[in-house]
Amino acid sequence: MATIDVHFLPSLTTPEALSGATVVVIDVLRATTTIATALAAGAKEVIPCLEVGEARRIAAELPQGAAILGGERGGERIDGFELCNSPLEYTPGRVGGKTVVFTTTNGTRALEHCRQASRVWLGAIVNLSTVAERIARDENIHILCAGTVGKMTAEDVLTAGMVSARIVAADRRRDVKRNLGDGACVALGFAEAHGADEIARRRTLFQSNGGRNLARLGMAADIRFACQLNRLRVAPELDLTEWRIRLAH
Amino acid sequence: MATIDVHFLPSLTTPEALSGATVVVIDVLRATTTIATALAAGAKEVIPCLEVGEARRIAAELPQGAAILGGERGGERIDGFELCNSPLEYTPGRVGGKTVVFTTTNGTRALEHCRQASRVWLGAIVNLSTVAERIARDENIHILCAGTVGKMTAEDVLTAGMVSARIVAADRRRDVKRNLGDGACVALGFAEAHGADEIARRRTLFQSNGGRNLARLGMAADIRFACQLNRLRVAPELDLTEWRIRLAH
Repeated sequence: MATIDVHFLPSLTTPEALSGATVVVIDVLRATTTIATALAAGAKEVIPCLEVGEARRIAAELPQGAAILGGERGGERIDGFELCNSPLEYTPGRVGGKTVVFTTTNGTRALEHCRQASRVWLGAIVNLSTVAERIARDENIHILCAGTVGKMTAEDVLTAGMVSARIVAADRRRDVKRNLGDGACVALGFAEAHGADEIARRRTLFQSNGGRNLARLGMAADIRFACQLNRLRVAPELDLTEWRIRLAH
Repeated sequence: MATIDVHFLPSLTTPEALSGATVVVIDVLRATTTIATALAAGAKEVIPCLEVGEARRIAAELPQGAAILGGERGGERIDGFELCNSPLEYTPGRVGGKTVVFTTTNGTRALEHCRQASRVWLGAIVNLSTVAERIARDENIHILCAGTVGKMTAEDVLTAGMVSARIVAADRRRDVKRNLGDGACVALGFAEAHGADEIARRRTLFQSNGGRNLARLGMAADIRFACQLNRLRVAPELDLTEWRIRLAH
């Protein structure tokens, strides 16, 4: 039987458990929101890196002007990087046609967990329905919440629940039965209560640990941006061989 | 500010993080439901043990007829034990006046996590409101879901959310502000969607991993029992010095 499960943190599953499956990685505040925005703004691709030094090295190896460095540490800009991790910075003027070499701890670590997966998508509220439509007919679906420094974040679970709801609705239209894991069941219920309207979603994002941190750092505009349902019609996919994120065609 | 958080598994928090706090341990299918039932049926106390051998040794040290052995491994009776882990077995005739020496892996492991807590309560759906009323004025509250073999279970999260909802409602009546952790926020939303009515609760318990396992083993009656909201007016508390669970007076 087809399955769907939601893992509230990478540590709650294993790369082996994701083997051969479709995985959606979610890090709403802010990695997957920002990557979706960069690609929607015309970036050629995004290369996710765990370490700052690795990002610098990869960018230096690319032809002059082809790469742009982006990312954050503790929510703040990295010394010598042109862009931070705010989706608002990733405009066509800055990233159009470029390779974004991007480093963020939680999102990249979640992607590393998917090395054995069949296909890996990057989901956020801003591109929710486009990703959900791409995977809705897949047999085994895992949604992987990135969390923050090993702690579950409510906004990732909310988004995972909203994606799950669309999969379940598509199953119902096709008259397909799908086995829901306990994580999917909890995320679906949470999204039912708080995902349907803009106000409830915004409250969840502003009250979460990650949201409160960002607001404290003066980045409330990023939270409001990340809340916009289906603003972008893009489905970013991680090429597991080349380790680059591009728009799926 | 007062706080409440929900941990979906013991591994998602540390004994240090629970230090000095009020903790409610939840293992709805079936340890905390069964322990509440045993104490409501007149058992003198329950001694939680991690290992079968330890349970046998403790029972053998008690005076003849004072102890009764209960517990499970993989949902089934342990060789030589008089009782399994079904709440329906814990009747006044069997456990009245006795010390129940009880072994169950997940519930006991969760209790071990609380060694540094200030007070430790055992919560389930059957005694939900009584436990919630006892802790509602406490400053720092953690709800610890036991899970099953390291996996999150939906019924524990549901119950944690239902307890949280009662705490938040009591705060509102007292005009107290409490900081909600991301786990509490997710559990509250899930309980809002699926905890309010008997039918939704029952569906969650029957569809969860643990519930499906029990139903497969022919124990659907236990699930129906565990679903009964506030059937028992008892607040089991773990005495951290003597390591025994008794009814709080």
